[in-house]
Amino acid sequence: MTLLTKENTVNVSNTAAIYKSLQTTICRTFEQADGTGKFTQDEWQKEIGSGLTCVMQNGSIIEKAGVNFSHVSGIFSENMAKLLGEKANTFEVTGVSSIIHSGNPFVPTIHMNVRHFSLDNGSSWFGGGIDLTPTYINAIEARWFHQTLKDICDRYDTNFYPEWKTWADDYFYLTHRHETRGVGGIFFDRMQPANEADLKIMLNLTCDLLKIYPVIYSQLMKDNGYKPFTAAQKKWQKIRRGRYVEFNLIHDRGTKFGLETDGNIESILVSLPAEVEWVYQNQPEAGSPEAQTQELLKKGIDWVKG
Amino acid sequence: MTLLTKENTVNVSNTAAIYKSLQTTICRTFEQADGTGKFTQDEWQKEIGSGLTCVMQNGSIIEKAGVNFSHVSGIFSENMAKLLGEKANTFEVTGVSSIIHSGNPFVPTIHMNVRHFSLDNGSSWFGGGIDLTPTYINAIEARWFHQTLKDICDRYDTNFYPEWKTWADDYFYLTHRHETRGVGGIFFDRMQPANEADLKIMLNLTCDLLKIYPVIYSQLMKDNGYKPFTAAQKKWQKIRRGRYVEFNLIHDRGTKFGLETDGNIESILVSLPAEVEWVYQNQPEAGSPEAQTQELLKKGIDWVKG
Repeated sequence: MTLLTKENTVNVSNTAAIYKSLQTTICRTFEQADGTGKFTQDEWQKEIGSGLTCVMQNGSIIEKAGVNFSHVSGIFSENMAKLLGEKANTFEVTGVSSIIHSGNPFVPTIHMNVRHFSLDNGSSWFGGGIDLTPTYINAIEARWFHQTLKDICDRYDTNFYPEWKTWADDYFYLTHRHETRGVGGIFFDRMQPANEADLKIMLNLTCDLLKIYPVIYSQLMKDNGYKPFTAAQKKWQKIRRGRYVEFNLIHDRGTKFGLETDGNIESILVSLPAEVEWVYQNQPEAGSPEAQTQELLKKGIDWVKG
Repeated sequence: MTLLTKENTVNVSNTAAIYKSLQTTICRTFEQADGTGKFTQDEWQKEIGSGLTCVMQNGSIIEKAGVNFSHVSGIFSENMAKLLGEKANTFEVTGVSSIIHSGNPFVPTIHMNVRHFSLDNGSSWFGGGIDLTPTYINAIEARWFHQTLKDICDRYDTNFYPEWKTWADDYFYLTHRHETRGVGGIFFDRMQPANEADLKIMLNLTCDLLKIYPVIYSQLMKDNGYKPFTAAQKKWQKIRRGRYVEFNLIHDRGTKFGLETDGNIESILVSLPAEVEWVYQNQPEAGSPEAQTQELLKKGIDWVKG
């Protein structure tokens, strides 16, 4: 494989420009869907590279949203080499990651991440995914969510969705709770095509995810954002958010990587929800909507088939 | 060193009986100091051993308290051998750990832990400590807290307090935030005496910590438990609690050990506060009590000297 440095080829710098422009679209779409909430923009520059952290707090429906873009490069450390099983001198990576928490318990939490990674040894790959974490699982909504992702994947390769759906089930899993984070979605990593044409496919696919992401969530906001809820339903949301915090701080690789490399801590932890609660041995009443949700927090559910 | 298996010698089984009876005293003292809150008792039995998890939720002053006793034994795994740099076939350990969170922002969060560990190769050691995490740091209170711990340590060895105070500064440190968890206290591990007499000293010292712990906290509850507070002060408490969650899930060795060994998850995470909040880039106003507290979250402060 040759190094992808020419104009119009798929390289990380070109990808970064495309991703950054899609970040702008995402934020604009969310502002429109929310009605009152606005994103603040924090540009940061470090020796390692630059980024733009966009955060919305206390909108009408969106309680806390982070949409982060970054483009960094540096020395390929021994730790990275061990982790990735490759030898190289330098790396370059760009990505967009986002998490949205709504104040309304009937609007799920959503997470999206895409990234393009390359090494100076010629390796170049894409990773990413979208997953949904409802406070109350609605099977029809979960089916629509998965079908939407499947439709995008199927445009490129019909093997993608089934493989990446399983990957998401395995990745977004709280081993210490023996439960999934939510209804999953898709997750993929190190998709390293053998040629330029296939690299372009992966770039296009990740761009499709960046485009569908605000469309999916705007629909969920529209459908659920103004549903009335009780104090007990709000409490259940805060308890479920506790699981989200546990996943991000204990398991999530991106968060761990950020914490270990002394990254921009406020950007990394903007993923955490605003109000969270931990209750000792909270057990939803048998047969309640809360108990039904808890029973669905397991791997291997074929949401599309239903 | 000979194995400590005779009656009246310091061995883990004898220590377990003493620790368990002190757990009862701790819970009784907290119930008296709180006035209305009561501890629930959950006894658990697993192949590895047994324990008693005592939890109070929603008392008058205490919002959430866990006082956990456990006594377990098992195969000394390769992971443990690597971690401890010793060879052995089996281990046995007993301990009490406790964390108290108050609903009142002027009552600090406190943590106490003591443990006695032994291996079938003859090694036998103690570890533990007490540390304090105020929402608002009160220097007079911090001084009194440290002086109380120093007085206990000094009864046994005047080197203990200065060494263990530094150890606590280093241990209760959020590397990703570059701040200490609170005003520290004492922390020690693998105190492995060479003879029976010195083992007894360590046993007595850990028992003194178990006895002073509820005395210290009852005083803090009495002094601060009914102070009025504003919504802004409560919010600051929830934000500081976010740091507590970060420390426990990211850094704390005991929590990590529990999560990795598939321990009793509700007992392990009873340490987490009830209501928590994360706010992006929260910056207390310069000169405010919140900013003053934040400035004191650093290592090396000689609280006793003041």
